[in-house]
Amino acid sequence: MFTVYGMADSGNCYKVKLALEQLGKPYRWVEVDSTRGETRSKEFLARNPNGKVPTLQLEDGTYLPESNAILYYLAEGTPLLPADKLGRARALQWMFFEQYSHEPYIAVARSILRYQPAESPRRAELPRLHERGNQALAVMEQHLSRSPFFAGTGYSVADIALFAYTHVAADGGFELKRYPAVSAWLARVGAQPKHVPLG
Amino acid sequence: MFTVYGMADSGNCYKVKLALEQLGKPYRWVEVDSTRGETRSKEFLARNPNGKVPTLQLEDGTYLPESNAILYYLAEGTPLLPADKLGRARALQWMFFEQYSHEPYIAVARSILRYQPAESPRRAELPRLHERGNQALAVMEQHLSRSPFFAGTGYSVADIALFAYTHVAADGGFELKRYPAVSAWLARVGAQPKHVPLG
Repeated sequence: MFTVYGMADSGNCYKVKLALEQLGKPYRWVEVDSTRGETRSKEFLARNPNGKVPTLQLEDGTYLPESNAILYYLAEGTPLLPADKLGRARALQWMFFEQYSHEPYIAVARSILRYQPAESPRRAELPRLHERGNQALAVMEQHLSRSPFFAGTGYSVADIALFAYTHVAADGGFELKRYPAVSAWLARVGAQPKHVPLG
Repeated sequence: MFTVYGMADSGNCYKVKLALEQLGKPYRWVEVDSTRGETRSKEFLARNPNGKVPTLQLEDGTYLPESNAILYYLAEGTPLLPADKLGRARALQWMFFEQYSHEPYIAVARSILRYQPAESPRRAELPRLHERGNQALAVMEQHLSRSPFFAGTGYSVADIALFAYTHVAADGGFELKRYPAVSAWLARVGAQPKHVPLG
């Protein structure tokens, strides 16, 4: 059985939970609270020297970190990853887009508003995070106005990766109603079989 | 033949050049200068709506952006990608590490020191970039003190992805001599067959 070291409120950890549920793979969840420094303990750093959740422990005891590498590992050979070479590259294209051009703005804005006190100086970062996050949402809107999903012809791990923080973007101060194609895609993803909520 | 839309001095674009050279794949290089706004032109945004280089044009005309998705696409089925499922996931683990925990600090510090004027207010970002970039180098040092390469048993696209900005980290004010295992790995990567320099 897999073991997920994760934090229930983290979108990156939710990606792994959603994929495991939809693939029908049994797993054990070990809650690790990064907001209380639990990812920086000596014990946790032995599992992932980069000190981040999620980290997946495979059945043989091996640890695999990085949410989107975990998604790819779980999805290989299943309907959650396109079966053709270009389709797999497209899934990765959007997963790298998510980690570089989307998560550092949309997830970080959510984190500041959700976990930092109202008087935190980090609130000064919000205008830039909103500008960049809205750029990412506009790129998604353009793609989704022509395609129902991100990679290949159906629902894949690229959709899971981008759904994780997009569907809670309002927590970070983003207005999803400005993006009708993104909003319709969120509903399509939420209606997939065996979908489970964040948390 | 492939066409690479890229900027010669960009580490992300160099990754694609190095992989194509080492795989012996012929390609055409179209220089696109992002420092002069050329990635934000209407013509370029039609190729990659996210407005970034590198973007690879495949033989059938399809455009594929995101340096590490391009690397994975080019390497599939070649010795540059591990042949087993866990090895592929490890390569992706380190490529996601590169884009999330390494490039945003090491490449951005280099960019500020190389392209911004000496009086630029962006220099105020350098202490934080150096702190986070040194954390990434320390994670690499720990891995490389036990393994000669990042994924599987040999040289792979994970090494190409991490070599690109690590070998010019001094441009960003990092001291590579503090990391002997990283320094030895840089020499190993530079000694691979058909290696070509940045630029």
